[in-house]
Amino acid sequence: MSDLLKKMQWRYATKKMDPSKVVPQDKVDRIVEAARLAPTSSGLQPFEVLVVTNPELRAQIQAKAHNQAQVTEGSHLLVFAAWDNYTAERINTYFDFTNAERGGTNEGWENYRKMLLANYPGRSAEVNFEHAARQAYIALGAALISAAFEEVDATPMEGFVPAAVDEILGLAARGLRSVVIVPLGYRAAEGDWLANLKKVRRPREKFVTEVK
Amino acid sequence: MSDLLKKMQWRYATKKMDPSKVVPQDKVDRIVEAARLAPTSSGLQPFEVLVVTNPELRAQIQAKAHNQAQVTEGSHLLVFAAWDNYTAERINTYFDFTNAERGGTNEGWENYRKMLLANYPGRSAEVNFEHAARQAYIALGAALISAAFEEVDATPMEGFVPAAVDEILGLAARGLRSVVIVPLGYRAAEGDWLANLKKVRRPREKFVTEVK
Repeated sequence: MSDLLKKMQWRYATKKMDPSKVVPQDKVDRIVEAARLAPTSSGLQPFEVLVVTNPELRAQIQAKAHNQAQVTEGSHLLVFAAWDNYTAERINTYFDFTNAERGGTNEGWENYRKMLLANYPGRSAEVNFEHAARQAYIALGAALISAAFEEVDATPMEGFVPAAVDEILGLAARGLRSVVIVPLGYRAAEGDWLANLKKVRRPREKFVTEVK
Repeated sequence: MSDLLKKMQWRYATKKMDPSKVVPQDKVDRIVEAARLAPTSSGLQPFEVLVVTNPELRAQIQAKAHNQAQVTEGSHLLVFAAWDNYTAERINTYFDFTNAERGGTNEGWENYRKMLLANYPGRSAEVNFEHAARQAYIALGAALISAAFEEVDATPMEGFVPAAVDEILGLAARGLRSVVIVPLGYRAAEGDWLANLKKVRRPREKFVTEVK
């Protein structure tokens, strides 16, 4: 088994974290960095990550997340917030930045920009948001794997009221909508009902089809 | 920089692959295994992965994917196909399987099953499909990282006609809808316009917000 698969076997959706333990900042930084490096459609990275340590705000979020304990037992809370829409301004900002980083323009790349500008802003905000949310989930996958490499526990959660979390964190004004939250911390395995249960995945033959 | 971040830096959305090179089966298996081990909402894994090597079918898919060359230049094509809906049968199959694997039932777990049964099947198929698609993207992230660990190039693609790919692969009859395809292969860097361009990501300060 590769190192990566071992790390993926090690991780689990920790249900109880030890509130006395704090994830070191360099580990948090590398977890977020994996999200930042994750590939996304057209490279647009249509989302942001908030790292919430403020105890009062995390308590408020917890109240809107079925009171799941890890939100405050962990030391850091990642909030993945997707763009509420694709706008011409957002697309142009990205293409201009990419040109600046690469030190020039490229005809194919500029034609690609035009294609996106002709298509994305004209779609409904909801279609665009759903597309952006999917991209955030690629980065979620990367962050969860990165956490496992750091031997940090991480529990992805969709069980919260997005509009309430958006309100608590002032996301709407920034054109963002929360899509998934991830407490980071360390397992308190003795109090976690899930810690000693087998990790279950659908068997390979019911998951993969080879088309030869 | 951690190993993981190095691998993520190494990978890129390869635009030209060398058709004479074949990804070894054990590498393909570990790439798919990462997708299988990826965490998903409630553990439902609401998607499947098809590994298409058949040349005629890949040519047909290529024609419905803006003729992107990698679809046939690579040696394997992964197709991520999400459930078209959450049904009571699918939910029960998963919970029953999990109980069998864990050798017993658990009251909290059974209550959780009831909550899902009370909620998911009553939502529209489109809402459920979008939710399933997001989960598939977590696994996409895992597979792309796994490919990087295997030093295999992988190009995630959304630029295809999903209904046409569903038809080519007979997915609708299985309650599946294609959401993203990923050719696996080896870069032919000398012919790839993107190979020598800098990987661009939004700077950290425009991606992460610390809320202290």
